[in-house]
Amino acid sequence: MAELPSRFGVILYPEFEVLDLFGPLEALNIISRPEFQTGYKHFSLSIIAATLDPVPSMRANNPFQQTVVPTHTLDNAPPLDVLLVPGGIGSDHEGTDKIAEFICHRYPSLKYLITVCTGADLAARAGVLDGRKATTNKLVWKYITGKPTSHKTHWIAQARWVTDGNIWTTSGVSAGTDGMLAWIAEVYGEDYVEKIVHGMEFFRHPDSSNDPFAGIYGCQDVPPVCS
Amino acid sequence: MAELPSRFGVILYPEFEVLDLFGPLEALNIISRPEFQTGYKHFSLSIIAATLDPVPSMRANNPFQQTVVPTHTLDNAPPLDVLLVPGGIGSDHEGTDKIAEFICHRYPSLKYLITVCTGADLAARAGVLDGRKATTNKLVWKYITGKPTSHKTHWIAQARWVTDGNIWTTSGVSAGTDGMLAWIAEVYGEDYVEKIVHGMEFFRHPDSSNDPFAGIYGCQDVPPVCS
Repeated sequence: MAELPSRFGVILYPEFEVLDLFGPLEALNIISRPEFQTGYKHFSLSIIAATLDPVPSMRANNPFQQTVVPTHTLDNAPPLDVLLVPGGIGSDHEGTDKIAEFICHRYPSLKYLITVCTGADLAARAGVLDGRKATTNKLVWKYITGKPTSHKTHWIAQARWVTDGNIWTTSGVSAGTDGMLAWIAEVYGEDYVEKIVHGMEFFRHPDSSNDPFAGIYGCQDVPPVCS
Repeated sequence: MAELPSRFGVILYPEFEVLDLFGPLEALNIISRPEFQTGYKHFSLSIIAATLDPVPSMRANNPFQQTVVPTHTLDNAPPLDVLLVPGGIGSDHEGTDKIAEFICHRYPSLKYLITVCTGADLAARAGVLDGRKATTNKLVWKYITGKPTSHKTHWIAQARWVTDGNIWTTSGVSAGTDGMLAWIAEVYGEDYVEKIVHGMEFFRHPDSSNDPFAGIYGCQDVPPVCS
């Protein structure tokens, strides 16, 4: 059990999508509680942002705002086993190049990289999705998959999540929770997931191809561009 | 449209359950974006806690911690149309009596009170569930419904959520998201919900009696205690 991943990090940036982050974290929070500490060291979580300033979920002038406190910066984040990259409108904004650089720099030392929604765009910009299969948010499918930085990735439309090696990419927003549960099932075991799902009173979708939203938004697979 | 609720508040306390809060807020966040501002004033959100210190999701010594920044205290929160009370282990802790007092004091001026999970315990302790039907988390069903402060409430076991007048109580954790979507459908209209659900890529459960977790945990209805 000592080899199981326990050092988690999440990336935050202004205008992140709250459920992209807190759906997967809810599942991990339940695991992190004492009754789940079955022989391996406690989980740790680093919340990583450009600075230690609280990170807003919405535009600065939006009066419907939530802010989350980082624990580390991109410069001082500790070693990580798992990096979770949520999506959101802000993933496309100026200043996120440093996050892509961070993902590029850290990926070789990670056991797993997990993206939710447009977090896959940050991973693609980091170059770590080159030559891999991946998925992303279905509402902005054409925009994300059409970026030059996405051209070496095989984008799978009909997918709640996609795994390729140690990279898990999920579709939009709530798909991150199903993807995280599938990842927990693979890494820690199905028994854990059942306890989590019951604790969360969650209707889990364990089939990665169960994705009506690809059809709703008319998304098609996007193979890598030949160069 | 001017009469629709727009001033939202949420209660926070240490060891709140993150999905209780951010599932419902995800849905409201989508509504609060400019394309949903169809003629009535912008939504506002007050995040209300005992003090303005960032509020932790876990015990102080848990290294898997998330902290959210309040915008107001129980003493200076502005007038509200809707109060959302999330649950979590901390809802039963010392210091939450002040939250129950806040709910009691504010309820008469609210248009709606919405509780998630053990947030219903705080509402029951506030006295506002006396004589009403309600539901709560299914894992801790017997504990919550057995409290003396719960004795004047008719607790409904087989329920994803329960409405009684202007009080909506949901079952545990992820039930809060389905309950919030049902509330949005009733107050703002079903069209809004469809856009939200598609944007969240969410598998909605629109039937309030669709609750397998009541059976999983062997929960039974608890009628009011005759006095």
